[in-house]
Amino acid sequence: MSVAVEDGFYQSLKVFDALQYSNWFGSPQNDAVSYRVDRTLLQQWRDGGLAGVHVTVTLWDDARTCVDRVTRWYRAFQESADLIQICLAGADLERAKRASRTAVLLGFQNTSPFEDDIGLVEVFYRLGIRVAQLTYNIQNFVGSSCYEIVDGGLTRFGRAVVNEMNRLGMLIDLSHVGEKTSLDAIEHSSRPVAVTHANPLSFARHPRNKSETLLRAVARSGGVVGCSPYPPLMGRLDVTLEEWCQMVADLAAVIGAEHVGIGTDTSLGWTDADLLAMNVARWSRSENWGSNLPGQTGWCEPVAWYRSSNDFPTLCRGLRKVGLDEKEVAGILGHNWQRLLTTILG
Amino acid sequence: MSVAVEDGFYQSLKVFDALQYSNWFGSPQNDAVSYRVDRTLLQQWRDGGLAGVHVTVTLWDDARTCVDRVTRWYRAFQESADLIQICLAGADLERAKRASRTAVLLGFQNTSPFEDDIGLVEVFYRLGIRVAQLTYNIQNFVGSSCYEIVDGGLTRFGRAVVNEMNRLGMLIDLSHVGEKTSLDAIEHSSRPVAVTHANPLSFARHPRNKSETLLRAVARSGGVVGCSPYPPLMGRLDVTLEEWCQMVADLAAVIGAEHVGIGTDTSLGWTDADLLAMNVARWSRSENWGSNLPGQTGWCEPVAWYRSSNDFPTLCRGLRKVGLDEKEVAGILGHNWQRLLTTILG
Repeated sequence: MSVAVEDGFYQSLKVFDALQYSNWFGSPQNDAVSYRVDRTLLQQWRDGGLAGVHVTVTLWDDARTCVDRVTRWYRAFQESADLIQICLAGADLERAKRASRTAVLLGFQNTSPFEDDIGLVEVFYRLGIRVAQLTYNIQNFVGSSCYEIVDGGLTRFGRAVVNEMNRLGMLIDLSHVGEKTSLDAIEHSSRPVAVTHANPLSFARHPRNKSETLLRAVARSGGVVGCSPYPPLMGRLDVTLEEWCQMVADLAAVIGAEHVGIGTDTSLGWTDADLLAMNVARWSRSENWGSNLPGQTGWCEPVAWYRSSNDFPTLCRGLRKVGLDEKEVAGILGHNWQRLLTTILG
Repeated sequence: MSVAVEDGFYQSLKVFDALQYSNWFGSPQNDAVSYRVDRTLLQQWRDGGLAGVHVTVTLWDDARTCVDRVTRWYRAFQESADLIQICLAGADLERAKRASRTAVLLGFQNTSPFEDDIGLVEVFYRLGIRVAQLTYNIQNFVGSSCYEIVDGGLTRFGRAVVNEMNRLGMLIDLSHVGEKTSLDAIEHSSRPVAVTHANPLSFARHPRNKSETLLRAVARSGGVVGCSPYPPLMGRLDVTLEEWCQMVADLAAVIGAEHVGIGTDTSLGWTDADLLAMNVARWSRSENWGSNLPGQTGWCEPVAWYRSSNDFPTLCRGLRKVGLDEKEVAGILGHNWQRLLTTILG
């Protein structure tokens, strides 16, 4: 356990990371893997003092494949019950923290598992999925991604999906979603929405980052925006801890600290080929590196001040240094997410 | 055989219907069907003197289900070789006619079988699929339907699909596709495209019908537009044979008779519940009757002058009566489609 975790203030928090997608179950290139969870990655959550983490179950897959991906987590919850438990309600963060475990919120970075079948939303809700990003990196049945040529907005099927997610209590994530589709979704949704992992466009011009209009709309819905130290989303590779924390503080000043959180986009254990596969999937025959900076192929080195969940105490120190008070920092590090999850999941 | 089929001119033609979707293999509601083809429907093609027909293999299904649907046709080609054969090239119309059979062109009314996987285009090409409509009635990975709230145009994946269809020799069908997506596809395609079953918007204001801009663009690509006697696409239920034939002649005057054909949208053997299932599929929980006229639920009665393929000779007579010459009528009844299929399929 790092020195900072011994800090009494940090220890009192229910820290929540709103997005991680590490190679917990072995490379998709490796058919021979046993799909046993990599416990060293779970141990990092414990070492970093995380009460909860939102994990990506899929980027692209259809319903059948996602059922398989969910069952890998069921096995992990059973075999690694000393380190993790499933997160089905906001109160699970509290329970996990008391048990020195990390509550794992299962989410999709795509609505592809719902295919074109409205009945599949409830199927995956019952299987434990509590978050779905409306689109990953291409147009789908629900709406347009932030990379699409034209953002046509939320489709008719998309409206049905939003209604169904509202009814069931599944959090709508807009991180990779196009601006018009996002604004349509916010307008159509009767419940708060989230951006689990993106930064303000004013900090770094990147298709994945969000305009002030959108950030304000998410806050107005009662939602939370998760800021990310993922290098491409910071626009350059040499952003300092202080600069990043100042970005978080600036966002808090614009939309209210109670609407700001952290979603690191931590992605450990993947090869460069995995990254290419994540972005090209099966939809293109051209190279596509997704959120990478222009000319950048393969993973870029993480910044020195955030390499894994172990470094959350460093983020805490940084946020306090830029002048955010203890209540604001507690909210940003996890309590805002806990409030939102309690609202949505009950 | 009807009297008109004994007409020497009609008998000399290679008649082609560019769209039929009848209940050849039993209702989707009936899990107990043996998926044996209904020979009475194939016999109508022979009685009507059809050299070829483009049949819809699917409206909505994914890859796995469509493989099953294709194999039903394989079985039919084997067991009903006296009546039908597969159509894989333009010359198959000639061959089929000589053998007194009907050449069956297998097509999709959706790109849903390609899912988000560009490799599946060639898979289905190799399985014998030679036509794909870019969208059915909702937004998909490729583009927007004519019913979508916003038509965002051809997506990035859509461009890849068009390229791949061009490379392989698969005909692009724009019948249910939105106007912007259609115009984008025509611009992006290096090969002629088709509208297999729709009428001019100037004849009947209906979301499924086509603007003069689009009709001219299809013709400019070298493609063909299939006019339909399907009542909803004629805008009212009492359109006469003469009015419909005049519509065809008027279209020929605008875009050239060599770019006009027939695509009847013949749909026999379905229940009203089947029609609802075709339109709602799994994407909505609201009633949706697709192309039906406002307030119309269930199938509407066909017009008296076109009830099934048996009535093609009646269409021939009607087209000659409105002043189209023999060459124009021969083109419209099938030779224009044959030319296009020869261009695309080789």
